[in-house]
Amino acid sequence: MKKITKKVNAAILIIGNEILSGRTQDKNISFISQWLNAKCGISVNEVRIIPDDEKKIIENILILSKKFNYVFTTGGIGPTHDDITAQSISKAFKVKYEYHKEAYAILEKYYGKKKFNDGRKKMAKLPRGAKLIYNPSSAAPGFIIKNVLSLPGVPSILNSMIENTKRYLVKGLKVHSKTLNLYTVESNISKQLGLIQKKYKKFVDIGSYPFFRLGKIGVAIVTRSNSISKLNIVNKELISLVKFKKIQILKI
Amino acid sequence: MKKITKKVNAAILIIGNEILSGRTQDKNISFISQWLNAKCGISVNEVRIIPDDEKKIIENILILSKKFNYVFTTGGIGPTHDDITAQSISKAFKVKYEYHKEAYAILEKYYGKKKFNDGRKKMAKLPRGAKLIYNPSSAAPGFIIKNVLSLPGVPSILNSMIENTKRYLVKGLKVHSKTLNLYTVESNISKQLGLIQKKYKKFVDIGSYPFFRLGKIGVAIVTRSNSISKLNIVNKELISLVKFKKIQILKI
Repeated sequence: MKKITKKVNAAILIIGNEILSGRTQDKNISFISQWLNAKCGISVNEVRIIPDDEKKIIENILILSKKFNYVFTTGGIGPTHDDITAQSISKAFKVKYEYHKEAYAILEKYYGKKKFNDGRKKMAKLPRGAKLIYNPSSAAPGFIIKNVLSLPGVPSILNSMIENTKRYLVKGLKVHSKTLNLYTVESNISKQLGLIQKKYKKFVDIGSYPFFRLGKIGVAIVTRSNSISKLNIVNKELISLVKFKKIQILKI
Repeated sequence: MKKITKKVNAAILIIGNEILSGRTQDKNISFISQWLNAKCGISVNEVRIIPDDEKKIIENILILSKKFNYVFTTGGIGPTHDDITAQSISKAFKVKYEYHKEAYAILEKYYGKKKFNDGRKKMAKLPRGAKLIYNPSSAAPGFIIKNVLSLPGVPSILNSMIENTKRYLVKGLKVHSKTLNLYTVESNISKQLGLIQKKYKKFVDIGSYPFFRLGKIGVAIVTRSNSISKLNIVNKELISLVKFKKIQILKI
Protein backbone atom coordinates (compact mmCIF):
# COMPACT_ATOMS: atom_id res chain seq x y z
CA MET A 1 0.00 0.00 0.00
CA LYS A 2 1.21 3.45 -0.90
CA LYS A 3 1.96 5.62 2.08
CA ILE A 4 -0.23 8.69 2.31
CA THR A 5 1.79 11.86 2.67
CA LYS A 6 -0.49 14.57 1.35
CA LYS A 7 -2.92 16.84 3.15
CA VAL A 8 -6.32 16.86 1.48
CA ASN A 9 -8.97 19.42 2.36
CA ALA A 10 -12.62 20.12 1.72
CA ALA A 11 -15.29 22.77 2.17
CA ILE A 12 -18.94 22.17 3.03
CA LEU A 13 -21.61 24.32 1.39
CA ILE A 14 -24.96 24.07 3.16
CA ILE A 15 -27.73 25.25 0.84
CA GLY A 16 -30.95 26.07 2.62
CA ASN A 17 -33.09 28.91 3.93
CA GLU A 18 -34.28 26.68 6.77
CA ILE A 19 -30.80 26.48 8.29
CA LEU A 20 -30.09 30.20 7.81
CA SER A 21 -33.37 31.22 9.44
CA GLY A 22 -32.58 29.05 12.45
CA ARG A 23 -35.75 26.99 11.99
CA THR A 24 -33.67 23.86 11.52
CA GLN A 25 -30.54 23.06 13.50
CA ASP A 26 -27.87 21.75 11.11
CA LYS A 27 -26.62 18.25 11.89
CA ASN A 28 -24.68 17.57 8.70
CA ILE A 29 -21.58 19.69 9.29
CA SER A 30 -20.22 17.75 12.24
CA PHE A 31 -21.21 14.40 10.70
CA ILE A 32 -19.51 15.05 7.34
CA SER A 33 -16.46 16.62 8.94
CA GLN A 34 -15.88 13.76 11.39
CA TRP A 35 -16.52 11.11 8.73
CA LEU A 36 -14.16 12.75 6.23
CA ASN A 37 -11.32 12.94 8.72
CA ALA A 38 -11.81 9.47 10.20
CA LYS A 39 -12.43 7.57 6.96
CA CYS A 40 -10.56 9.56 4.32
CA GLY A 41 -8.03 11.76 6.10
CA ILE A 42 -9.70 14.83 4.63
CA SER A 43 -9.94 18.01 6.72
CA VAL A 44 -12.85 20.38 6.42
CA ASN A 45 -11.32 23.87 6.31
CA GLU A 46 -14.36 26.02 5.67
CA VAL A 47 -18.13 25.83 5.86
CA ARG A 48 -20.62 28.21 4.31
CA ILE A 49 -24.38 28.33 4.74
CA ILE A 50 -26.25 30.16 1.98
CA PRO A 51 -29.88 30.60 0.89
CA ASP A 52 -31.67 28.72 -1.93
CA ASP A 53 -30.56 31.38 -4.39
CA GLU A 54 -29.17 30.46 -7.78
CA LYS A 55 -26.75 33.37 -8.05
CA LYS A 56 -25.30 32.68 -4.61
CA ILE A 57 -24.98 28.96 -5.23
CA ILE A 58 -23.11 29.57 -8.50
CA GLU A 59 -20.80 32.15 -6.94
CA ASN A 60 -19.94 29.94 -3.95
CA ILE A 61 -19.48 26.76 -6.01
CA LEU A 62 -16.96 28.55 -8.24
CA ILE A 63 -15.02 30.07 -5.33
CA LEU A 64 -14.95 26.99 -3.10
CA SER A 65 -14.19 24.46 -5.87
CA LYS A 66 -11.09 26.48 -6.74
CA LYS A 67 -9.93 26.94 -3.15
CA PHE A 68 -10.39 23.38 -1.83
CA ASN A 69 -9.73 19.84 -3.00
CA TYR A 70 -13.40 18.91 -2.57
CA VAL A 71 -16.67 20.71 -1.97
CA PHE A 72 -19.57 18.87 -0.33
CA THR A 73 -22.97 20.49 -0.80
CA THR A 74 -26.02 19.53 1.24
CA GLY A 75 -29.64 20.31 0.43
CA GLY A 76 -31.62 21.35 -2.61
CA ILE A 77 -31.71 18.09 -4.56
CA GLY A 78 -35.34 17.10 -3.95
CA PRO A 79 -38.42 17.41 -6.18
CA THR A 80 -39.76 20.86 -5.25
CA HIS A 81 -39.29 24.34 -6.76
CA ASP A 82 -36.83 25.37 -4.03
CA ASP A 83 -34.50 22.45 -4.89
CA ILE A 84 -32.16 24.20 -7.29
CA THR A 85 -28.74 22.76 -6.48
CA ALA A 86 -28.34 20.60 -9.60
CA GLN A 87 -29.36 23.29 -12.08
CA SER A 88 -27.27 25.92 -10.30
CA ILE A 89 -24.17 23.71 -10.38
CA SER A 90 -24.83 23.04 -14.10
CA LYS A 91 -24.80 26.79 -14.68
CA ALA A 92 -21.70 27.28 -12.54
CA PHE A 93 -19.77 24.75 -14.64
CA LYS A 94 -21.48 25.76 -17.90
CA VAL A 95 -22.76 22.27 -18.69
CA LYS A 96 -26.26 21.13 -19.70
CA TYR A 97 -28.84 20.35 -16.99
CA GLU A 98 -30.47 17.21 -18.35
CA TYR A 99 -31.84 13.77 -17.53
CA HIS A 100 -29.16 11.39 -16.32
CA LYS A 101 -29.94 8.03 -17.88
CA GLU A 102 -28.97 5.87 -14.93
CA ALA A 103 -30.60 8.17 -12.36
CA TYR A 104 -33.78 8.15 -14.45
CA ALA A 105 -33.77 4.35 -14.58
CA ILE A 106 -33.15 4.04 -10.82
CA LEU A 107 -36.00 6.39 -9.95
CA GLU A 108 -38.41 4.89 -12.49
CA LYS A 109 -37.77 1.46 -11.05
CA TYR A 110 -38.13 2.69 -7.46
CA TYR A 111 -41.44 4.51 -7.95
CA GLY A 112 -42.87 2.36 -10.73
CA LYS A 113 -43.79 3.82 -14.13
CA LYS A 114 -47.24 4.99 -13.04
CA LYS A 115 -46.09 6.92 -9.99
CA PHE A 116 -43.04 8.42 -11.68
CA ASN A 117 -44.44 11.95 -11.91
CA ASP A 118 -42.78 15.24 -12.94
CA GLY A 119 -41.56 16.08 -9.43
CA ARG A 120 -39.84 12.72 -9.17
CA LYS A 121 -38.44 12.97 -12.68
CA LYS A 122 -36.86 16.29 -11.70
CA MET A 123 -34.59 14.37 -9.32
CA ALA A 124 -33.07 12.57 -12.34
CA LYS A 125 -31.97 15.87 -13.91
CA LEU A 126 -28.29 16.51 -13.24
CA PRO A 127 -25.37 18.42 -14.70
CA ARG A 128 -24.11 16.65 -17.86
CA GLY A 129 -21.11 14.47 -17.01
CA ALA A 130 -22.10 14.02 -13.37
CA LYS A 131 -21.54 10.63 -11.74
CA LEU A 132 -23.98 9.21 -9.23
CA ILE A 133 -23.69 8.89 -5.47
CA TYR A 134 -26.10 6.05 -4.70
CA ASN A 135 -28.85 6.45 -2.13
CA PRO A 136 -29.78 3.27 -0.25
CA SER A 137 -32.62 4.95 1.72
CA SER A 138 -34.82 6.71 -0.81
CA ALA A 139 -33.34 6.05 -4.26
CA ALA A 140 -32.85 9.67 -5.41
CA PRO A 141 -29.10 9.81 -5.98
CA GLY A 142 -26.58 12.50 -5.13
CA PHE A 143 -23.93 13.32 -7.70
CA ILE A 144 -20.38 14.44 -8.26
CA ILE A 145 -19.18 16.74 -10.99
CA LYS A 146 -15.56 17.88 -11.05
CA ASN A 147 -14.62 18.17 -7.36
CA VAL A 148 -18.14 19.01 -6.13
CA LEU A 149 -20.20 16.31 -4.40
CA SER A 150 -23.89 17.01 -3.84
CA LEU A 151 -25.85 15.29 -1.08
CA PRO A 152 -29.38 15.76 0.27
CA GLY A 153 -30.15 17.85 3.34
CA VAL A 154 -32.10 15.26 5.36
CA PRO A 155 -29.48 13.94 7.82
CA SER A 156 -30.66 10.29 7.93
CA ILE A 157 -30.55 10.03 4.13
CA LEU A 158 -27.22 11.86 3.89
CA ASN A 159 -25.73 9.57 6.52
CA SER A 160 -26.81 6.50 4.59
CA MET A 161 -25.12 7.80 1.42
CA ILE A 162 -21.82 9.06 2.74
CA GLU A 163 -19.95 5.76 2.27
CA ASN A 164 -20.81 5.94 -1.44
CA THR A 165 -18.75 9.11 -1.85
CA LYS A 166 -15.57 7.27 -0.87
CA ARG A 167 -14.84 5.86 -4.32
CA TYR A 168 -14.48 9.42 -5.65
CA LEU A 169 -12.14 10.72 -2.96
CA VAL A 170 -8.36 10.75 -2.79
CA LYS A 171 -7.21 9.88 0.71
CA GLY A 172 -5.14 12.31 2.74
CA LEU A 173 -3.28 12.42 6.01
CA LYS A 174 -5.61 11.82 8.91
CA VAL A 175 -5.67 14.35 11.75
CA HIS A 176 -5.30 12.52 15.07
CA SER A 177 -6.53 14.16 18.22
CA LYS A 178 -6.44 13.80 21.99
CA THR A 179 -8.56 15.54 24.56
CA LEU A 180 -7.62 16.33 28.16
CA ASN A 181 -10.57 17.43 30.27
CA LEU A 182 -9.36 19.51 33.19
CA TYR A 183 -11.14 20.90 36.22
CA THR A 184 -9.63 24.35 35.99
CA VAL A 185 -10.22 27.68 34.29
CA GLU A 186 -8.52 28.72 31.07
CA SER A 187 -6.65 31.66 32.55
CA ASN A 188 -4.91 29.36 35.08
CA ILE A 189 -3.01 27.62 32.27
CA SER A 190 -3.21 30.03 29.34
CA LYS A 191 0.37 31.29 29.63
CA GLN A 192 2.06 27.85 29.73
CA LEU A 193 -0.33 26.52 27.10
CA GLY A 194 0.69 29.33 24.80
CA LEU A 195 4.36 28.47 25.30
CA ILE A 196 3.80 24.80 24.53
CA GLN A 197 1.82 25.73 21.42
CA LYS A 198 4.64 28.04 20.29
CA LYS A 199 7.23 25.30 20.74
CA TYR A 200 5.31 22.75 18.63
CA LYS A 201 3.37 25.02 16.30
CA LYS A 202 4.67 23.32 13.19
CA PHE A 203 3.33 19.90 14.12
CA VAL A 204 0.58 20.15 16.69
CA ASP A 205 -2.42 22.39 17.00
CA ILE A 206 -3.62 23.02 20.57
CA GLY A 207 -7.15 24.21 21.26
CA SER A 208 -8.64 25.23 24.58
CA TYR A 209 -12.41 25.02 25.12
CA PRO A 210 -14.24 25.85 28.35
CA PHE A 211 -17.03 23.49 29.39
CA PHE A 212 -19.69 23.22 32.08
CA ARG A 213 -20.42 19.71 33.27
CA LEU A 214 -22.13 18.36 36.38
CA GLY A 215 -22.20 21.86 37.80
CA LYS A 216 -18.44 22.28 37.51
CA ILE A 217 -16.53 24.42 35.07
CA GLY A 218 -13.58 23.00 33.21
CA VAL A 219 -11.42 23.23 30.14
CA ALA A 220 -11.00 20.70 27.34
CA ILE A 221 -7.50 20.84 25.89
CA VAL A 222 -7.68 19.35 22.41
CA THR A 223 -4.47 18.54 20.57
CA ARG A 224 -4.45 17.69 16.88
CA SER A 225 -1.71 16.50 14.60
CA ASN A 226 -0.99 14.37 11.55
CA SER A 227 1.66 12.63 13.67
CA ILE A 228 0.68 10.39 16.58
CA SER A 229 4.21 10.49 18.04
CA LYS A 230 4.24 14.31 18.05
CA LEU A 231 0.81 14.26 19.65
CA ASN A 232 2.16 12.01 22.42
CA ILE A 233 5.14 14.30 23.05
CA VAL A 234 2.90 17.35 23.45
CA ASN A 235 0.47 15.46 25.68
CA LYS A 236 3.33 14.42 27.95
CA GLU A 237 4.22 18.09 28.40
CA LEU A 238 0.59 18.91 29.06
CA ILE A 239 0.36 16.20 31.72
CA SER A 240 3.48 17.59 33.42
CA LEU A 241 1.90 21.04 33.43
CA VAL A 242 -1.33 19.65 34.88
CA LYS A 243 0.57 17.80 37.65
CA PHE A 244 2.67 20.86 38.44
CA LYS A 245 -0.47 23.00 38.74
CA LYS A 246 -2.22 20.23 40.76
CA ILE A 247 -5.17 20.25 38.39
CA GLN A 248 -7.69 17.39 38.52
CA ILE A 249 -8.20 15.48 35.28
CA LEU A 250 -11.75 14.42 34.45
CA LYS A 251 -11.94 10.90 33.04
CA ILE A 252 -14.82 10.38 30.66
CA MET B 1 -42.90 55.52 16.39
CA LYS B 2 -41.27 55.51 12.96
CA LYS B 3 -42.53 52.76 10.72
CA ILE B 4 -39.84 50.30 9.72
CA THR B 5 -39.63 49.85 5.98
CA LYS B 6 -36.08 48.69 5.38
CA LYS B 7 -34.67 45.19 5.09
CA VAL B 8 -31.62 44.74 7.29
CA ASN B 9 -29.32 41.74 6.96
CA ALA B 10 -26.42 40.11 8.76
CA ALA B 11 -23.81 37.42 8.38
CA ILE B 12 -22.52 35.12 11.11
CA LEU B 13 -18.84 34.22 11.21
CA ILE B 14 -18.13 31.23 13.44
CA ILE B 15 -14.45 31.17 14.38
CA GLY B 16 -13.28 27.85 15.72
CA ASN B 17 -11.40 24.68 14.81
CA GLU B 18 -13.64 22.72 17.18
CA ILE B 19 -16.73 23.40 15.06
CA LEU B 20 -14.95 22.71 11.76
CA SER B 21 -13.55 19.41 12.98
CA GLY B 22 -17.01 18.30 14.05
CA ARG B 23 -15.92 17.81 17.66
CA THR B 24 -18.44 20.41 18.79
CA GLN B 25 -21.91 20.80 17.36
CA ASP B 26 -22.64 24.48 16.78
CA LYS B 27 -25.64 25.84 18.66
CA ASN B 28 -25.12 29.54 18.08
CA ILE B 29 -26.21 29.87 14.45
CA SER B 30 -29.85 29.01 14.98
CA PHE B 31 -30.00 30.96 18.27
CA ILE B 32 -28.55 34.17 16.81
CA SER B 33 -30.55 33.90 13.60
CA GLN B 34 -33.89 33.39 15.35
CA TRP B 35 -33.18 36.11 17.90
CA LEU B 36 -32.13 38.63 15.25
CA ASN B 37 -35.27 38.09 13.21
CA ALA B 38 -37.69 37.99 16.16
CA LYS B 39 -36.27 40.90 18.14
CA CYS B 40 -34.65 43.14 15.51
CA GLY B 41 -36.14 42.22 12.14
CA ILE B 42 -32.66 41.36 10.88
CA SER B 43 -32.23 38.41 8.48
CA VAL B 44 -29.12 36.27 8.51
CA ASN B 45 -28.19 35.83 4.84
CA GLU B 46 -24.90 33.97 5.13
CA VAL B 47 -22.92 31.97 7.66
CA ARG B 48 -19.28 31.00 7.44
CA ILE B 49 -17.30 28.72 9.72
CA ILE B 50 -13.52 29.20 9.59
CA PRO B 51 -10.50 28.03 11.60
CA ASP B 52 -8.62 30.00 14.28
CA ASP B 53 -6.36 31.47 11.63
CA GLU B 54 -5.50 35.16 11.59
CA LYS B 55 -5.25 35.50 7.81
CA LYS B 56 -8.62 33.82 7.29
CA ILE B 57 -10.32 35.88 10.00
CA ILE B 58 -9.03 39.13 8.47
CA GLU B 59 -10.05 38.11 4.96
CA ASN B 60 -13.56 37.09 6.01
CA ILE B 61 -14.17 40.10 8.25
CA LEU B 62 -13.31 42.44 5.38
CA ILE B 63 -15.50 40.61 2.85
CA LEU B 64 -18.53 40.08 5.10
CA SER B 65 -18.51 43.55 6.70
CA LYS B 66 -18.73 45.05 3.21
CA LYS B 67 -21.45 42.70 1.96
CA PHE B 68 -23.82 42.78 4.95
CA ASN B 69 -25.28 45.36 7.33
CA TYR B 70 -23.88 43.49 10.34
CA VAL B 71 -21.43 40.70 11.00
CA PHE B 72 -21.71 38.64 14.19
CA THR B 73 -18.62 36.66 15.12
CA THR B 74 -18.60 33.90 17.71
CA GLY B 75 -15.58 32.38 19.42
CA GLY B 76 -11.98 33.34 20.00
CA ILE B 77 -12.36 36.03 22.66
CA GLY B 78 -11.12 34.07 25.69
CA PRO B 79 -7.76 34.11 27.50
CA THR B 80 -5.81 31.41 25.62
CA HIS B 81 -3.36 31.50 22.70
CA ASP B 82 -6.00 30.27 20.24
CA ASP B 83 -8.30 33.22 21.06
CA ILE B 84 -7.26 35.61 18.32
CA THR B 85 -10.49 37.26 17.23
CA ALA B 86 -9.85 40.70 18.78
CA GLN B 87 -6.32 41.08 17.43
CA SER B 88 -7.34 39.78 14.00
CA ILE B 89 -10.21 42.26 13.75
CA SER B 90 -7.82 45.04 14.85
CA LYS B 91 -5.55 44.10 11.95
CA ALA B 92 -8.48 43.83 9.52
CA PHE B 93 -9.55 47.40 10.34
CA LYS B 94 -5.97 48.67 10.78
CA VAL B 95 -6.50 49.94 14.33
CA LYS B 96 -4.41 49.36 17.45
CA TYR B 97 -5.02 46.26 19.57
CA GLU B 98 -4.82 47.64 23.10
CA TYR B 99 -6.29 47.63 26.60
CA HIS B 100 -9.83 48.95 26.68
CA LYS B 101 -10.09 51.02 29.86
CA GLU B 102 -13.63 50.06 30.80
CA ALA B 103 -13.13 46.38 29.93
CA TYR B 104 -9.97 46.37 32.05
CA ALA B 105 -11.84 47.92 34.99
CA ILE B 106 -14.73 45.46 34.70
CA LEU B 107 -12.40 42.44 34.64
CA GLU B 108 -10.16 43.72 37.43
CA LYS B 109 -13.20 44.24 39.62
CA TYR B 110 -14.63 40.80 38.75
CA TYR B 111 -11.46 38.81 39.47
CA GLY B 112 -9.95 41.06 42.15
CA LYS B 113 -6.52 42.66 41.75
CA LYS B 114 -4.61 39.58 42.97
CA LYS B 115 -6.21 37.10 40.61
CA PHE B 116 -6.17 39.41 37.59
CA ASN B 117 -3.40 37.54 35.74
CA ASP B 118 -2.05 37.95 32.21
CA GLY B 119 -4.55 35.53 30.64
CA ARG B 120 -7.43 37.46 32.13
CA LYS B 121 -5.89 40.81 31.21
CA LYS B 122 -5.76 39.62 27.60
CA MET B 123 -9.56 39.65 27.56
CA ALA B 124 -9.45 43.43 28.10
CA LYS B 125 -7.43 43.98 24.91
CA LEU B 126 -9.66 45.10 22.07
CA PRO B 127 -9.47 46.99 18.80
CA ARG B 128 -9.12 50.74 19.47
CA GLY B 129 -12.50 52.43 19.25
CA ALA B 130 -14.47 49.28 20.07
CA LYS B 131 -17.55 49.59 22.27
CA LEU B 132 -18.44 46.93 24.82
CA ILE B 133 -21.15 44.28 24.74
CA TYR B 134 -21.68 43.54 28.42
CA ASN B 135 -21.49 40.00 29.76
CA PRO B 136 -23.76 39.26 32.73
CA SER B 137 -22.49 35.67 33.15
CA SER B 138 -18.72 35.84 33.29
CA ALA B 139 -17.74 39.52 33.00
CA ALA B 140 -15.44 39.28 29.94
CA PRO B 141 -17.19 41.58 27.46
CA GLY B 142 -17.81 41.19 23.77
CA PHE B 143 -17.34 44.21 21.55
CA ILE B 144 -18.49 46.03 18.46
CA ILE B 145 -16.29 47.89 16.02
CA LYS B 146 -17.78 49.36 12.85
CA ASN B 147 -20.51 46.86 11.90
CA VAL B 148 -18.81 43.81 13.41
CA LEU B 149 -20.08 42.43 16.74
CA SER B 150 -17.92 39.86 18.52
CA LEU B 151 -19.40 37.38 20.98
CA PRO B 152 -17.96 34.37 22.79
CA GLY B 153 -18.39 30.79 21.54
CA VAL B 154 -19.84 29.21 24.69
CA PRO B 155 -23.61 29.15 23.96
CA SER B 156 -24.84 29.84 27.52
CA ILE B 157 -22.64 32.94 27.79
CA LEU B 158 -23.49 34.14 24.30
CA ASN B 159 -27.20 33.71 25.01
CA SER B 160 -26.90 35.82 28.17
CA MET B 161 -25.22 38.65 26.21
CA ILE B 162 -27.34 38.84 23.08
CA GLU B 163 -29.83 41.38 24.48
CA ASN B 164 -26.89 43.74 25.03
CA THR B 165 -26.21 43.91 21.30
CA LYS B 166 -29.63 45.47 20.67
CA ARG B 167 -28.58 49.03 21.41
CA TYR B 168 -26.13 48.90 18.51
CA LEU B 169 -28.54 47.53 15.91
CA VAL B 170 -30.84 49.33 13.50
CA LYS B 171 -34.17 47.52 13.29
CA GLY B 172 -35.42 46.09 10.02
CA LEU B 173 -38.51 44.48 8.63
CA LYS B 174 -39.30 41.26 10.44
CA VAL B 175 -39.77 38.08 8.42
CA HIS B 176 -42.99 36.40 9.46
CA SER B 177 -43.44 32.71 8.85
CA LYS B 178 -46.07 29.99 8.91
CA THR B 179 -45.57 26.25 8.82
CA LEU B 180 -47.98 23.65 7.47
CA ASN B 181 -47.03 20.10 8.41
CA LEU B 182 -48.50 17.69 5.92
CA TYR B 183 -48.68 13.90 5.85
CA THR B 184 -47.66 13.55 2.24
CA VAL B 185 -44.55 13.32 0.08
CA GLU B 186 -42.98 16.30 -1.67
CA SER B 187 -43.52 14.98 -5.18
CA ASN B 188 -47.30 14.78 -4.59
CA ILE B 189 -47.54 18.56 -4.35
CA SER B 190 -44.33 19.82 -5.96
CA LYS B 191 -45.95 20.94 -9.22
CA GLN B 192 -48.76 23.02 -7.63
CA LEU B 193 -46.38 24.35 -4.99
CA GLY B 194 -44.08 25.58 -7.73
CA LEU B 195 -46.98 27.39 -9.42
CA ILE B 196 -48.04 29.08 -6.17
CA GLN B 197 -44.42 30.14 -5.52
CA LYS B 198 -44.19 31.57 -9.03
CA LYS B 199 -47.39 33.58 -8.58
CA TYR B 200 -46.21 35.17 -5.30
CA LYS B 201 -42.46 35.13 -5.73
CA LYS B 202 -42.12 38.86 -5.13
CA PHE B 203 -43.69 38.74 -1.67
CA VAL B 204 -43.57 35.27 -0.23
CA ASP B 205 -40.88 32.64 -0.07
CA ILE B 206 -42.12 29.03 0.07
CA GLY B 207 -39.87 26.26 1.36
CA SER B 208 -40.59 22.54 1.38
CA TYR B 209 -38.85 20.29 3.92
CA PRO B 210 -39.38 16.55 4.30
CA PHE B 211 -39.60 15.22 7.85
CA PHE B 212 -39.89 11.90 9.66
CA ARG B 213 -42.02 11.91 12.79
CA LEU B 214 -43.67 9.16 14.79
CA GLY B 215 -42.74 6.70 12.07
CA LYS B 216 -44.52 8.68 9.36
CA ILE B 217 -42.99 10.74 6.61
CA GLY B 218 -44.28 14.20 5.89
CA VAL B 219 -43.48 17.59 4.47
CA ALA B 220 -43.26 20.92 6.26
CA ILE B 221 -44.30 23.76 3.99
CA VAL B 222 -42.78 26.93 5.40
CA THR B 223 -43.91 30.29 4.06
CA ARG B 224 -42.02 33.49 4.86
CA SER B 225 -42.77 37.10 4.13
CA ASN B 226 -42.36 40.62 5.45
CA SER B 227 -46.13 40.98 5.02
CA ILE B 228 -48.56 39.08 7.25
CA SER B 229 -51.47 39.70 4.89
CA LYS B 230 -49.55 38.27 1.91
CA LEU B 231 -48.60 35.30 4.06
CA ASN B 232 -52.28 34.69 4.83
CA ILE B 233 -53.24 34.86 1.15
CA VAL B 234 -50.62 32.26 0.21
CA ASN B 235 -51.58 30.01 3.12
CA LYS B 236 -55.23 30.11 2.01
CA GLU B 237 -54.15 28.82 -1.39
CA LEU B 238 -52.03 26.16 0.25
CA ILE B 239 -54.96 25.00 2.38
CA SER B 240 -57.14 24.76 -0.74
CA LEU B 241 -54.47 22.65 -2.40
CA VAL B 242 -54.21 20.41 0.65
CA LYS B 243 -58.01 19.93 0.77
CA PHE B 244 -58.17 19.22 -2.94
CA LYS B 245 -55.45 16.59 -2.61
CA LYS B 246 -57.10 15.18 0.55
CA ILE B 247 -53.88 15.50 2.50
CA GLN B 248 -53.95 15.20 6.28
CA ILE B 249 -52.56 18.18 8.23
CA LEU B 250 -50.51 17.40 11.31
CA LYS B 251 -51.34 19.74 14.21
CA ILE B 252 -48.41 20.33 16.54
